[in-house]
Amino acid sequence: MSSIEQIRQAARRLKGHARKTPLLSSPFLDEIAGRRLLVKAECLQHTGSFKFRGGWSAVSALSAEQLRKGVIAFSSGNHAQGVAAAAKAHDAPAVIVMPSDAPKLKIENTGALGAEVVLYDRAAGEDRDAIGKELAEARGLTLIKPYDEPQVIAGQGTTGLEIAEQARAEGIDKAEVLVCCGGGGLTSGIALALEAEAPGLRVRPVEPQGFDDVKRSLEAREICHNASASGSICDAILTLAPGELTFPILSRLCGPGLAVTEEEALHAMALAFTRLKIVLEPGGAVALAAALFHADQIEGEAVIAVATGGNVDAALFGNALCRYA
Amino acid sequence: MSSIEQIRQAARRLKGHARKTPLLSSPFLDEIAGRRLLVKAECLQHTGSFKFRGGWSAVSALSAEQLRKGVIAFSSGNHAQGVAAAAKAHDAPAVIVMPSDAPKLKIENTGALGAEVVLYDRAAGEDRDAIGKELAEARGLTLIKPYDEPQVIAGQGTTGLEIAEQARAEGIDKAEVLVCCGGGGLTSGIALALEAEAPGLRVRPVEPQGFDDVKRSLEAREICHNASASGSICDAILTLAPGELTFPILSRLCGPGLAVTEEEALHAMALAFTRLKIVLEPGGAVALAAALFHADQIEGEAVIAVATGGNVDAALFGNALCRYA
Repeated sequence: MSSIEQIRQAARRLKGHARKTPLLSSPFLDEIAGRRLLVKAECLQHTGSFKFRGGWSAVSALSAEQLRKGVIAFSSGNHAQGVAAAAKAHDAPAVIVMPSDAPKLKIENTGALGAEVVLYDRAAGEDRDAIGKELAEARGLTLIKPYDEPQVIAGQGTTGLEIAEQARAEGIDKAEVLVCCGGGGLTSGIALALEAEAPGLRVRPVEPQGFDDVKRSLEAREICHNASASGSICDAILTLAPGELTFPILSRLCGPGLAVTEEEALHAMALAFTRLKIVLEPGGAVALAAALFHADQIEGEAVIAVATGGNVDAALFGNALCRYA
Repeated sequence: MSSIEQIRQAARRLKGHARKTPLLSSPFLDEIAGRRLLVKAECLQHTGSFKFRGGWSAVSALSAEQLRKGVIAFSSGNHAQGVAAAAKAHDAPAVIVMPSDAPKLKIENTGALGAEVVLYDRAAGEDRDAIGKELAEARGLTLIKPYDEPQVIAGQGTTGLEIAEQARAEGIDKAEVLVCCGGGGLTSGIALALEAEAPGLRVRPVEPQGFDDVKRSLEAREICHNASASGSICDAILTLAPGELTFPILSRLCGPGLAVTEEEALHAMALAFTRLKIVLEPGGAVALAAALFHADQIEGEAVIAVATGGNVDAALFGNALCRYA
């Protein structure tokens, strides 16, 4: 079971390693949002997304023997880089199993961070889990799951401890906290942290339209699935369904989910460029998009949006600027 | 005379108003630079550049009577926005005299920050100083100069106090600190702060090639001029010559100047996008460009580059990405 005590322990392990990311704002964005809007810029975290926190938390919780043997993760993107960077810093071997059609830059980055990248051909029907299981057993590797893993949830939850402290410093004790949501590791971690440290702040998950499994699951009070986990530019937060560990936390603590269009995500990326000087990827911009363009579905005089990542190709970013900046 | 005590007083006035900007890094940039590279991201400051610090410092040092009458500044860009935002927060009227051919967005932003924008036609030979003087006398406005003003230098110097503290936290007590340099307000302020707080950190000014008045002035030990203060994409840091107040400080405390090409500045912008997830304007990227591409002219195992601003048009930014990202 994930708990605030686990999050506080993770925060102690992350201290001096993860960045405390700033809470940014602009009067121009406040005007669009119709209320005070604060943006937690996790794109400025090491490896360009909050995933570094969970990766570090999980790796740093391993025994010396586990570290010596190494870790394994499945990921086409941000989780891969987070785990690779954390493993490297702990001198632990890391194997990352990635689809061969993942963006070339993400494959290169993961390798450059010291991980051994094992590619599989998803079009040819190669079984990722079988490949990973064989490797893990042969070498005694520890699997680091992307969200349904207590130490990963605890690491992501450290974002919530910072939000609680930073909101207090801004004089905010009541607000909705919008979080870009995939499997729910970050969202559930932040919700647990805020429950303990800033109970006036309520988390609301935000997803891309058509991939709103968490929103529908919260409404149905049971885990609902998406038809697919691909086919959106918001690739970083596409999952089939909330996790077995994360959903009960989301269900207990979160307000209703929100869903935004891809166009709204691109527009939010352009506004983050112009007004905050940060780089967001589409999946990392959906919470900001909800704050800006779905203001009527949000309550209160202030809103906090977590900008979760910035690992975006130049072409896609340039496209967002062309159309909306 | 500017002093560390003035900077410390400015820091007290800025507390809770200016952002403490993060010191960012990436192993990929370390590799290019050939040493540890830390980037002070002042593009994340309010109004998108360090100029907010100097504006706030100067405005907050005025008497109640001066604030009631208001302030005036000449600027086509970042200083305008910094002074406008600071004046608005102090309920002081602000008049900003801008060339009518300044970027439309910068004119709009300055107006949207509550300032009265007075345009003059520099092509038609209208005299900016005469227009400003007449307005200032008629209304009793206080002029806030962009760099040759002790309270502005003190405000910019608060960046140096943060660098001293953040470098210490990173275990760095000896390094060169590269600063994008126009009239020298930021550079001299940081140099004064580091002299007192981190004497192992030495400031070096960085300018665009062809506009390296500070570099040449330091070599000649007297103020040298550029032929022109326009004609580079690094518009934010183009000045004819270092200031009367700033040059003696630069001369006493700084190492040799560095100069980079426009192409190197664009390349640095693209790398800041890919590796740090921040938006830089060309003039705000020259220090990072020097750290990355002029490593042979830099000493030591670590270097700190101050990224001074991010107020760049989408088209120019897209161009940098197209070519270098």
